[in-house]
Amino acid sequence: MKKKYIMAPGPTEVPPEVLAEGAKPVMHHRTPQFRKILTEVLDNMKYVLGTQRSVHILSASGTGAMEAAMANMTSPGEKIIVASIGAFGDRWEAIAKAYNVNVVKIASEWGYPVKPEELKKVLDENLDAVAVFTTLNETSTGVYNDIEAFGKLTVNHKAALVVDGISGIGAQPFYMDKWAVDMIVVGSQKGLMIPPGLAFVAASEKAWKLVETSKNPKFYFDLKKSEKALTKEKMPDTPWTSAVSLICQLNVALRLIKEEGIENIWDRHRKLARAVREAMTALGLKLFAAENPAVVLCSVVVPEGLDGKALVKKIRDDYGISMAGGQGKMEGKIFRIGTLGYTDRFDAIIGVAATEMALKDMGANIEIGKGVKKAMEVLIEEKY
Amino acid sequence: MKKKYIMAPGPTEVPPEVLAEGAKPVMHHRTPQFRKILTEVLDNMKYVLGTQRSVHILSASGTGAMEAAMANMTSPGEKIIVASIGAFGDRWEAIAKAYNVNVVKIASEWGYPVKPEELKKVLDENLDAVAVFTTLNETSTGVYNDIEAFGKLTVNHKAALVVDGISGIGAQPFYMDKWAVDMIVVGSQKGLMIPPGLAFVAASEKAWKLVETSKNPKFYFDLKKSEKALTKEKMPDTPWTSAVSLICQLNVALRLIKEEGIENIWDRHRKLARAVREAMTALGLKLFAAENPAVVLCSVVVPEGLDGKALVKKIRDDYGISMAGGQGKMEGKIFRIGTLGYTDRFDAIIGVAATEMALKDMGANIEIGKGVKKAMEVLIEEKY
Repeated sequence: MKKKYIMAPGPTEVPPEVLAEGAKPVMHHRTPQFRKILTEVLDNMKYVLGTQRSVHILSASGTGAMEAAMANMTSPGEKIIVASIGAFGDRWEAIAKAYNVNVVKIASEWGYPVKPEELKKVLDENLDAVAVFTTLNETSTGVYNDIEAFGKLTVNHKAALVVDGISGIGAQPFYMDKWAVDMIVVGSQKGLMIPPGLAFVAASEKAWKLVETSKNPKFYFDLKKSEKALTKEKMPDTPWTSAVSLICQLNVALRLIKEEGIENIWDRHRKLARAVREAMTALGLKLFAAENPAVVLCSVVVPEGLDGKALVKKIRDDYGISMAGGQGKMEGKIFRIGTLGYTDRFDAIIGVAATEMALKDMGANIEIGKGVKKAMEVLIEEKY
Repeated sequence: MKKKYIMAPGPTEVPPEVLAEGAKPVMHHRTPQFRKILTEVLDNMKYVLGTQRSVHILSASGTGAMEAAMANMTSPGEKIIVASIGAFGDRWEAIAKAYNVNVVKIASEWGYPVKPEELKKVLDENLDAVAVFTTLNETSTGVYNDIEAFGKLTVNHKAALVVDGISGIGAQPFYMDKWAVDMIVVGSQKGLMIPPGLAFVAASEKAWKLVETSKNPKFYFDLKKSEKALTKEKMPDTPWTSAVSLICQLNVALRLIKEEGIENIWDRHRKLARAVREAMTALGLKLFAAENPAVVLCSVVVPEGLDGKALVKKIRDDYGISMAGGQGKMEGKIFRIGTLGYTDRFDAIIGVAATEMALKDMGANIEIGKGVKKAMEVLIEEKY
């Protein structure tokens, strides 16, 4: 008997009480009973995002919400700045190209964030840019951007700040209103601890002005249609049939989040990521993130001479844990241990233990137990 | 204690074994384990649709898949024909407008289908139209179109035939390849008996030529990206993180569908719809569908002097059954009893009984039991 675990940067483990909600009969969406649930969900999403603005709920994956952001915030021929630090940052550029939007791209070396001073320089050189599209946490490299610092730059610039928070929200510090973020994009299968299939977008007043004038074709992802539905009667509604079972699961998950407290959750993620990071270093492995290491996963360089894809496959098939390999140009070169969402100290220890055992199987020169010992020491020091 | 029932044209009841699947831990989507499930799902979807073509799976509601059809099949300034018989047919026109596609519209009087000869005339007058967008079953009116006859017209015309089968697929006869349908759009929360959140698109060779030349901006719904993922390795994949828990539920639902047999399912729906229809007539109520009455629901005119919205509310709140009221211009004027998906003879009887009881409560002049008696007689005659 081998248990199965997910330690990927999404989908993540779903708490049992949230899974159980997924087995309840489906409700009809155009009923006061369901709209009451939707009301609670949207209020709690505001709490998670640190915003007073409407939260739009989309039945889509995170990429759908990224497209919604682009389609609603831009018009063909306009100029945007993309501040990319990896594969998901690059996705902003790909979507912009599909929409005939002109991109000024800042691309950090993989493993590094975009420095606020770089962004400042590009903003100063591009006073006509309508928006900056960037990433809170870049899962392909395991690095986060300093969004608070970015917000201090865009708040005095024409450009709105659009943030892909798909993997970071619910795991690391984020205050939409306080940090002057104009649009945030969120996915369901990460820090929110439910299965994939829902995504969220919230827009500031500054962002909403762009939404109102955008000339891109759109229908399903049209935020104006969503806003109309959210505000049409006493209780919020959605323009299309929404994924009601996922919304009911989200309601349960958000209650758990509120109970733990979002700032406590951020701190838990910080501790778990630190434990895994220091464990990897103790084993003599090299971390991939050179600065701003992620709190949702730990990206580790595959030891010289080993096959990174085989390592991830072994951890999955022999040890039952779905971790992530490298993406794009890092395929086979790094592996990524997720500690995102419904994850506690023993998950971090399991992740480290499985990594050690699989590396040993593959003939890596490591001392079994050294990583786990270090992880435990960190957890004790962090009082977790 | 009052049980809850859904007798709406979607979402529909989900079988217990499918609900239970919704409570299982989430799988990672980029694994052979999940892709094996996806393989089975896509094969069984081909069976349901009567096609040998790829079935594309979208994490979206049905409207998202309608937009996918428009975005992939057309280019700005092109001409299409919309053959609409109600609110969902009109949605094709609204999406086309969002994409700057020119629409020649055939609109039947509500309660009637589009006659094949009308479509023939418009096709003859518009030899430059690239596609006909229409609806298999129009839930807003409870009327279906003769798609087989439409296919016989478009097969010899430049125009491709695009069919919204969201509420009809899995409930009424449909053979994509045999009927020469070029694109079919499907939703998950109807005849497929799972919660909302998934949608499907399949394209013929004729349709795929339009997909390849389409100039509309698109990313998340880009079928070329989906085709690439479906065919990239030995097992199908999706371009974005898909709603894995819904796909696992669909796998269970499709096994049930295959076990019953799709043609048997169509016949079951025909029998149930006939039972409800004749029950309503026996009660002295007027059916709204003048021709081609739907097999997924029965649309009934609200008796003179009664408030249709209050009737639907009473059936929901006092009797626990979510039926549907009228949509758009029929709001308050009709009500709709769904017998779609996971529905058997006793559901039809319950639907009729609740309607009788609620009508009586509201002072309608009906003889209690007369509708149920008729429904039972029909079911006996139909040997169900």
